[in-house]
Amino acid sequence: MKPISASIITIGDELLIGQTIDTNSAFIGQELNKAGIWLKRRIAVGDVREEILNALTEQSRDNDILLITGGLGPTADDITKPALRDYFSAGIRTDAGALQNVHDIFSRFGRTPSEVNVKQADVPDLCEVLPNKRGTAPGMWFDKDGVIYVSLPGVPHEMKGLITDSVLPKLKERFTLPAIVHRTALTAGKGESDLAAHIADFEAALPAWIKLAYLPSYGLVRLRLTARGDDAAAVEHAIGDRFADLKNRVAEWLVADEDISLTEALHRLLKERGKTVGTAESCTGGYLARLLTEPAGASQLFNGSIVAYANEIKERVLGVPAEILRRHGAVSEETVRAMVAGGLRVLGTDYIVATSGIMGPTGGTPEKPVGTIWIAVGSRERTETLLLNYRFDRARNMELTANTALNFLRRFIAKTS
Amino acid sequence: MKPISASIITIGDELLIGQTIDTNSAFIGQELNKAGIWLKRRIAVGDVREEILNALTEQSRDNDILLITGGLGPTADDITKPALRDYFSAGIRTDAGALQNVHDIFSRFGRTPSEVNVKQADVPDLCEVLPNKRGTAPGMWFDKDGVIYVSLPGVPHEMKGLITDSVLPKLKERFTLPAIVHRTALTAGKGESDLAAHIADFEAALPAWIKLAYLPSYGLVRLRLTARGDDAAAVEHAIGDRFADLKNRVAEWLVADEDISLTEALHRLLKERGKTVGTAESCTGGYLARLLTEPAGASQLFNGSIVAYANEIKERVLGVPAEILRRHGAVSEETVRAMVAGGLRVLGTDYIVATSGIMGPTGGTPEKPVGTIWIAVGSRERTETLLLNYRFDRARNMELTANTALNFLRRFIAKTS
Repeated sequence: MKPISASIITIGDELLIGQTIDTNSAFIGQELNKAGIWLKRRIAVGDVREEILNALTEQSRDNDILLITGGLGPTADDITKPALRDYFSAGIRTDAGALQNVHDIFSRFGRTPSEVNVKQADVPDLCEVLPNKRGTAPGMWFDKDGVIYVSLPGVPHEMKGLITDSVLPKLKERFTLPAIVHRTALTAGKGESDLAAHIADFEAALPAWIKLAYLPSYGLVRLRLTARGDDAAAVEHAIGDRFADLKNRVAEWLVADEDISLTEALHRLLKERGKTVGTAESCTGGYLARLLTEPAGASQLFNGSIVAYANEIKERVLGVPAEILRRHGAVSEETVRAMVAGGLRVLGTDYIVATSGIMGPTGGTPEKPVGTIWIAVGSRERTETLLLNYRFDRARNMELTANTALNFLRRFIAKTS
Repeated sequence: MKPISASIITIGDELLIGQTIDTNSAFIGQELNKAGIWLKRRIAVGDVREEILNALTEQSRDNDILLITGGLGPTADDITKPALRDYFSAGIRTDAGALQNVHDIFSRFGRTPSEVNVKQADVPDLCEVLPNKRGTAPGMWFDKDGVIYVSLPGVPHEMKGLITDSVLPKLKERFTLPAIVHRTALTAGKGESDLAAHIADFEAALPAWIKLAYLPSYGLVRLRLTARGDDAAAVEHAIGDRFADLKNRVAEWLVADEDISLTEALHRLLKERGKTVGTAESCTGGYLARLLTEPAGASQLFNGSIVAYANEIKERVLGVPAEILRRHGAVSEETVRAMVAGGLRVLGTDYIVATSGIMGPTGGTPEKPVGTIWIAVGSRERTETLLLNYRFDRARNMELTANTALNFLRRFIAKTS
């Protein structure tokens, strides 16, 4: 079976100029992949007519599907629709459903659409309109010379809704797709090179149709096995055996055997145990609390946090003794231990994770340079501490500390019977 | 002067499969743009030899510069280096400086590099090595048939260091570059379409060499003017006048007249006034604290936070009366007012911002559906409240609430004399 291949074309100067980070392509990539469509290329071009036309011509040569996002907004710098009209030599028509949708959205907010808003319902006459429940710009589906072209608005939640509701069901109808199976293991605390050396023989023994990828991210590495084939059951079975072997080999650093975040793994563990957690943060400034409340259902396991950025808050709210701060400093093992004790008392949770460190760029001293960070995790029974010495910039120190602290907490809980 | 154009080629299956979000291209785009290099295209291809070779061939046809990132790691799925050797028909040599660098990095951690680590110093013999202080994979610079090819590791901080330290200085030496000037106004509280209608005549009157772009992001819209020309002083002058006009027209929603974040604008305002802030958060779960501590220098103006996710913490730590919670519920104007009062008392700051709402996907009721969020901002003198009614998913509700709350705080402070 010939693989069905796609390219994504993202349109907008803001992507080339770096003022917007392209998160849309990642979502589309994931969804296509799960559907068994091979994403061959992602291309971003500016709001330049010829560049858009060139990209359409080039990418339609060796692809079955082109997904085009962006450049459909009501403002004058959005030029995708005229470019598509030129490309397909299409006329223009006002789509009744899309027009009704514009009016519906505005009337929901008690407003009347302006002329530019109403123009969102004008589409090239060769396209099939894909209704957009979340915004005024409709999706557009073109089927020409065996290639499917889909144009979607760039606003992430509108694009996502259209992909899920319309595009994927229609693509699955239109093409016969192979089985693609991924298995992902999330590891923490072991670098990419070290992991690679550790499982070199496993990797060397993989058949050609199973690939292993290393995906590092701030102290975490995802190991992803990907298999493809025509028979879904056979592919599932073969990758299952390999994945079991891989998990055994990295058991020491394994956080999760599916593609979830470190926080999601922590949520599951806490829910299984019926335990609660809180944070007492200095240098992470609320980031641990933010991560713990990112997934839904956080209220079952997370009570709250004391962000004690100023020493005064460490003393007054968390009850860190002034003597400890004076003698050992805010960035010390003694302080994070006292922060855990204070957090347990004030927040009343089963576990507390505490941080105090120097994230940079300023605030370092010869004895405690930027990147010196103490972490403590404790319960009513015991407390453990960890000293980090990073040499990175503020943002990276922050990300690494957050993941390391959450993983330290996870391990602490896991070994508590 | 013919514009110097570049393409970015990003290599790695993880980008196509959507397991990694491409933040590198945004950084490179920004830097090239500031240097007056026109980024024509961004392309992402997988770890497939032919795809890499095709991209190099195609993009070298109409560009002066190709920047290639990713696929240089020590693991077996990284194939950029062999592809570059094929493309340039190059031999291989071990670079003495790069080899020393591998040994230096490992010895700093008291370790010996493995065979795969040492191989990082093997490079195509036609390239000039760009030293990488932050990692083991060196940058590589090729100058062939008038086109510059630069290959960089995909790890963000290594890539950024190489761009800043080596690539930009060398490109500025190699090419004569035009002047490009951007001016960005950050606005909050007015949608993209409404802003566009409001400044339609301003936009229509812009000369062809000045472009206006709308960059919306969760309740914020950046308005960016871009001008290019050969004479830097003339370009600066012309865009300055237009930008002053633009700022006047959007004065009501203007947060900042440069490309900074809402948090950075808030930092400046607080520093100017010599005031401090703290947060008392329920539904934002520490996100406001996280945002306020993201930029350096936060300790001058941010004391700390109480994240009172559970009602028990609202009562016990923030002193919200049980009677208020019982009668009005946690998501109510009375509760956020009491949270502000508690925050001012416990954290001792000049201002407190408080949030309580239902982020979803569960927890809504007919009277208070998902997306019902109360915000309060207060000082010792007065408190103001705001009710939001969103109808989005958890992540979007969170982002919108955070920006709206921080902007509400900013306006509150700004109008306090």
